[in-house]
Amino acid sequence: MPLNLDAVGRTTGPTEKSWTSRDALLYALGVGAGQDDPLRELEFTTENSHGVQQQVLPTFGVIIVHGGPRNMIGDFNPAMLVHGEQALTLHRPLPVEGRASITSTIVGMYDKGSGALVVTESTATDVESGEPLLSTASSVFIRGEGGFGGDRGPSPAWERPSREPDQRASAQTRPDQALLYRLSGDRNPLHSDPAFAARAGFPRPILHGLGTYGITGRLLLHALCGSDPSRFRSMRARFSRPVLPGARLTVSMWVDGDCARFQTTDDDGQVVIDHGEVEFS
Amino acid sequence: MPLNLDAVGRTTGPTEKSWTSRDALLYALGVGAGQDDPLRELEFTTENSHGVQQQVLPTFGVIIVHGGPRNMIGDFNPAMLVHGEQALTLHRPLPVEGRASITSTIVGMYDKGSGALVVTESTATDVESGEPLLSTASSVFIRGEGGFGGDRGPSPAWERPSREPDQRASAQTRPDQALLYRLSGDRNPLHSDPAFAARAGFPRPILHGLGTYGITGRLLLHALCGSDPSRFRSMRARFSRPVLPGARLTVSMWVDGDCARFQTTDDDGQVVIDHGEVEFS
Repeated sequence: MPLNLDAVGRTTGPTEKSWTSRDALLYALGVGAGQDDPLRELEFTTENSHGVQQQVLPTFGVIIVHGGPRNMIGDFNPAMLVHGEQALTLHRPLPVEGRASITSTIVGMYDKGSGALVVTESTATDVESGEPLLSTASSVFIRGEGGFGGDRGPSPAWERPSREPDQRASAQTRPDQALLYRLSGDRNPLHSDPAFAARAGFPRPILHGLGTYGITGRLLLHALCGSDPSRFRSMRARFSRPVLPGARLTVSMWVDGDCARFQTTDDDGQVVIDHGEVEFS
Repeated sequence: MPLNLDAVGRTTGPTEKSWTSRDALLYALGVGAGQDDPLRELEFTTENSHGVQQQVLPTFGVIIVHGGPRNMIGDFNPAMLVHGEQALTLHRPLPVEGRASITSTIVGMYDKGSGALVVTESTATDVESGEPLLSTASSVFIRGEGGFGGDRGPSPAWERPSREPDQRASAQTRPDQALLYRLSGDRNPLHSDPAFAARAGFPRPILHGLGTYGITGRLLLHALCGSDPSRFRSMRARFSRPVLPGARLTVSMWVDGDCARFQTTDDDGQVVIDHGEVEFS
């Protein structure tokens, strides 16, 4: 049993992470800003357009806390790890450049039978102001590491509403989308190297789960928040299927007041992001 | 007469410029590497693909020397400046990360009647090894600054061969190509801000001349050098027309031994890069 169950409750950090305006612009392009129309979304893709103030896509928050205490989880084959769920709560709009202090804690290691689910919570604080910036909860599923007799963990009670979606929004991804997204930090060759992807059982490199998450978040921001990051409060979602770059992604939204449930589907109507919940104001 | 004619012969530098593997990858994506097929050109778009060694596109050299002694030219409206010609000579393949020492000299200010042509030569030396890396010659045309009674300067004797091109290669640019290219350094809003572009008389932002140059150089590299940067010696070209992002660019090549002349045309067959010369081995 190579997972280290004692790691639950352990905290790493604070570590510091800084980012520049260029990092924020590159991330926005990586999740498709400006792809449909380069004359729109200029507040996310440019820093010097007339009458436009640069802003940061809310989901850039997951880039700020990228990494975390993975080395404390134990000894396992990293090729068996897949992203399970990702939650993000923003306490204020992200500055276009900044420095954050990050603390991460492993809050659970659950036995799902076929694998283990490891949940990590992180917080990021603005170093300059000392104010809380964001918090995240991220779970990874490690295939083959279950069966250790542990708790199965909570089962969230998400249900897809029976009514038709209140809103839908789509984005076309590009065959080379992951080559750009990866420059925001996640260089896992599963997303770029055809030989590596083949060994993992994929016909070609797949999109980053957090890339799909970022595209979804961008569409939610435009549809539900009038494109205003200060109205975007939180986003939670489960990664249910791999996405091949080039897929057209459609986000279906069911709105209830200041929150909405959502799913993201691919060209075949397969749900690739499930159990989505977003809060806004 | 706001141009400073005494600037001819003046040298700036040495200044230092460093770049990272990520900068080289971002530049490659900015000039379209991987766009046609993300499984090809992996040596330029990835640093960790199995059996692939990262390499740098030769035209990244113009990014390394970007800038130069523009402030010595004198006092003029920067909106009147357009890139005229760009020559690049590589003394060795560019390292994927490095630090260069750059020296630039204004070698000529010519009176073209309707404007002034200012020619700058730069050299870059590898700081670590002390070895020469590359040299460039760049000319800018400043509309409205001619008529000062100066020399018209040399007129190069380039001729388009009368025979059909020996090779042709094409690349589709994207409507948002300039949004990505600009992250390699040239943030002139002419290439991203529709309001600025309109004031300059364009229906929408235009592609960077050096973006078109980089796309052209990439196609030349694949067609003439078997995609091997160590075989790419030099490239010289004139910017003859603006390019709107989204255009399909076609490079026509006339090969004579280890050099070739080339032109780049847009969808309408208009020559956008003229007087092209490339040397290879």
